[in-house]
Amino acid sequence: MTLAEIASLVGGTLTGDPAHSVTGAEALLDASASDISFLADPRYVDQLAGTQAAAVLVGTDHPAPGPGDGPALLRVTDPSTAMTQAAAALASTARPPAVGVHPNAVVDPSATVAADVSVGPFCVVGPEAVLHAGVILHAGVIVGEGAQVGAGSELHPRVVLYPFVRIGEQCVLEAGVVLGSRGFGYDATPEGWQPVPQSGIVELGDRVDIGANCAVDCARIGATRMGDGVKLDNLVHVAHNVQIGDHSLVLGQVGIAGSAHLGKWVIVAGQVGINGHRTLGDGVQVGGGSRVFDDIPAGSEVFGVPAHEKKTAIRNLRVAPRLHEMRKHIRDLETRLAELEEQSR
Amino acid sequence: MTLAEIASLVGGTLTGDPAHSVTGAEALLDASASDISFLADPRYVDQLAGTQAAAVLVGTDHPAPGPGDGPALLRVTDPSTAMTQAAAALASTARPPAVGVHPNAVVDPSATVAADVSVGPFCVVGPEAVLHAGVILHAGVIVGEGAQVGAGSELHPRVVLYPFVRIGEQCVLEAGVVLGSRGFGYDATPEGWQPVPQSGIVELGDRVDIGANCAVDCARIGATRMGDGVKLDNLVHVAHNVQIGDHSLVLGQVGIAGSAHLGKWVIVAGQVGINGHRTLGDGVQVGGGSRVFDDIPAGSEVFGVPAHEKKTAIRNLRVAPRLHEMRKHIRDLETRLAELEEQSR
Amino acid sequence: MTLAEIASLVGGTLTGDPAHSVTGAEALLDASASDISFLADPRYVDQLAGTQAAAVLVGTDHPAPGPGDGPALLRVTDPSTAMTQAAAALASTARPPAVGVHPNAVVDPSATVAADVSVGPFCVVGPEAVLHAGVILHAGVIVGEGAQVGAGSELHPRVVLYPFVRIGEQCVLEAGVVLGSRGFGYDATPEGWQPVPQSGIVELGDRVDIGANCAVDCARIGATRMGDGVKLDNLVHVAHNVQIGDHSLVLGQVGIAGSAHLGKWVIVAGQVGINGHRTLGDGVQVGGGSRVFDDIPAGSEVFGVPAHEKKTAIRNLRVAPRLHEMRKHIRDLETRLAELEEQSR
Repeated sequence: MTLAEIASLVGGTLTGDPAHSVTGAEALLDASASDISFLADPRYVDQLAGTQAAAVLVGTDHPAPGPGDGPALLRVTDPSTAMTQAAAALASTARPPAVGVHPNAVVDPSATVAADVSVGPFCVVGPEAVLHAGVILHAGVIVGEGAQVGAGSELHPRVVLYPFVRIGEQCVLEAGVVLGSRGFGYDATPEGWQPVPQSGIVELGDRVDIGANCAVDCARIGATRMGDGVKLDNLVHVAHNVQIGDHSLVLGQVGIAGSAHLGKWVIVAGQVGINGHRTLGDGVQVGGGSRVFDDIPAGSEVFGVPAHEKKTAIRNLRVAPRLHEMRKHIRDLETRLAELEEQSR
Repeated sequence: MTLAEIASLVGGTLTGDPAHSVTGAEALLDASASDISFLADPRYVDQLAGTQAAAVLVGTDHPAPGPGDGPALLRVTDPSTAMTQAAAALASTARPPAVGVHPNAVVDPSATVAADVSVGPFCVVGPEAVLHAGVILHAGVIVGEGAQVGAGSELHPRVVLYPFVRIGEQCVLEAGVVLGSRGFGYDATPEGWQPVPQSGIVELGDRVDIGANCAVDCARIGATRMGDGVKLDNLVHVAHNVQIGDHSLVLGQVGIAGSAHLGKWVIVAGQVGINGHRTLGDGVQVGGGSRVFDDIPAGSEVFGVPAHEKKTAIRNLRVAPRLHEMRKHIRDLETRLAELEEQSR
Repeated sequence: MTLAEIASLVGGTLTGDPAHSVTGAEALLDASASDISFLADPRYVDQLAGTQAAAVLVGTDHPAPGPGDGPALLRVTDPSTAMTQAAAALASTARPPAVGVHPNAVVDPSATVAADVSVGPFCVVGPEAVLHAGVILHAGVIVGEGAQVGAGSELHPRVVLYPFVRIGEQCVLEAGVVLGSRGFGYDATPEGWQPVPQSGIVELGDRVDIGANCAVDCARIGATRMGDGVKLDNLVHVAHNVQIGDHSLVLGQVGIAGSAHLGKWVIVAGQVGINGHRTLGDGVQVGGGSRVFDDIPAGSEVFGVPAHEKKTAIRNLRVAPRLHEMRKHIRDLETRLAELEEQSR
């Protein structure tokens, strides 16, 4: 695309050669001379000097460049949104999957499959499973007996739904997701660990997105549940009977132990661990790498090990690298104090 | 099922309408008016007031309810066990997989497959692999050349066994498990990292359960081994040459680095990291999120970063949120002490 | 193999019965009487007394054993390399996969497949995908539309490449790897989280190895990139637009948040978390379990939470188990100081 075409697409004003053409979109530091890039966050303004991009989307208030140096500029109201548009226009787009059941899929005759569903090669759809209108199963998806997939949901390659799992509408499950594996419950006996029966299921609301290779266990009783609009990043572990409220966001590699309850609009940053049977109220935000050992009241922002009030936690984090130094100070104080005590006797 | 039927099933005494029927089983806070629920742990007695369950399984010593309020009660000796029974009776149960090899599976002619084995669609069983009596391979399982699966073991969809992996009897591998991937060993050279040959295997004892999407590497030499009755939760990483003793329990997202040895009846809670070449003696318990940098003697309970004696670690954990405050105290002491020193000169 | 045969293979000098035969190779503590073992690191010399190995590879400078006790010794220049050779000779080796496209694979007619490629059963190769010379797709691999796999690369069972992913030459992807899943980007709206379009791809250089069940997201714009010789261990999470420089090593369960840049020859130990938009310079080394909240200058070794200079961090780690004790000391000092202040008034 020429810069003129991109300017027209994003509704911007170009300073530079309108006939110059670009083939890709990249971040400032990664861009080559055939790429367009963008500057949305003023903190990264220094990267502008170092970029090799042919043109950079900037805000309307961006200062005029010096004569002849730097990339072409394309002024827009919102550089981030404009970049998304330009990148989408420049990117290849995969063709939509073919409607119908691939001849190399195995669909049980007792399954209910809506007319416009797409079932890819090597998919397995079990007895009495239900695929509602517009469902897309990419290659190698396995839908267990009696499982239900709501209208418009898309299951990427190799997703596994254990029997009786229920998925709402417009959900997106990335490759390798497992929903409904056995919950991890055992009773100790002298002969070894005896499995506690896990007779529950997994139930997702509408517009739930789940990242690659996540594992969500079925409930011991009832359902492990996620409300509408819940989004999970990659490699998240959700144990049996966890409940996640509407519009909560759970980032990469978080682990949520059994029967924990997350409210609505909760945000849990990457690699956090949440203990079993804990409750996180609505709107709670947990910083990356925290360990939640206790209940967290609604609206709190917490961080650290153990998770505690965020501002305090950040202060504590800054002090942590001085722990050894602190101990030395305590010892010095001890020595000096002992001397004074000696004198005052 | 009616409450009368459930009372008869679990051997309990009902206070409430015996003809009332329920369709599901749920935890107290998640239950609706068509569910039965239970109260096993007195810490959760407050949840009884808030439940919408039609009936609640309680202990025989549970106090009589006030007149007319709250759910029906079903008194039993052990509410947790009774709940498990009731939930299992109310839940749907998947039908057993068909015995025989699915026509859409690929089984090498040189593989040994016992007569009553079930091999699902899109499974691949490699040359000279052995599936003993009663083995179940769900859809999409891949059993590499020469791999062996002991009698009665069940491999859920998309499990991958690399060549020569050996699995004992009555094991359960959840969906997405990978056993026998290449161990992570490289020698540095100026041209890059040179892979160190990894010629070993993975060997599991009997009754080993492995959670969804776990990854267990083959050994550099010999075998990465788990003894009888070992249980792994989801997304656990087990590196080359790790040895895990009988009846050890490893929770979600734990990472065990190369050549670490865990004794028998060890319990490792979620997201723990264990350094390579460390030894954890029999009966060691490691609390959630700990980092094990050193050997841990048999019978110890440890916790924290670094993992240290549990009681001390819990005390330290409680103090951690006051680190910044402690530093301030040290500075105050410093100022006051300097003043005294000044006076005493 | 007899010990004489092994001695000849590794070029060593045997003290023991040359006709004695061994069937396997194991670490010292795991070896049985039919195994050969090795002692490369003098720290483990005590294990020599406890081993049941038939013979042990030791350095040429290893002291002569007392009369008649202990295993046979095989003296070599480099016991570790010799052990690798012996183990490889004793291990079973999987036969190479058959060249050609398995009849149970689905390859789009518009895909380009080199003549000597191996495509296993239940693989799917999408439209306009390209498999270069010598590529091996084990069973169940899915190569999306327009994806490219460089010469000599090996994709183990069930790897998923989303559309347009590009893989260099001689790469090895272990089972369950997902490359190109949707990046985790959402804008908050009152109705819920609105997905930010992710139009980029994943691009790997040559000789990149990726461990089992890793998940690498496509870029929001441009590419999530790994340079030549990058090695990832199991269950690593790589978010959108991350860039990893040549010859960097990333160990098990590390999580790298969006747009982080790792330089060349960086080493990130297990379970580390790296915040989004951070830069780690060339040669940075990050210790296990650290959290990287800030940029790290080239050549630094860091460790801890937050990641800070390694030597200081190790000192701090040693002090961490005394946090509660330190607080008690501070209180004691406080009391004693108050007494002195009282006296001096």
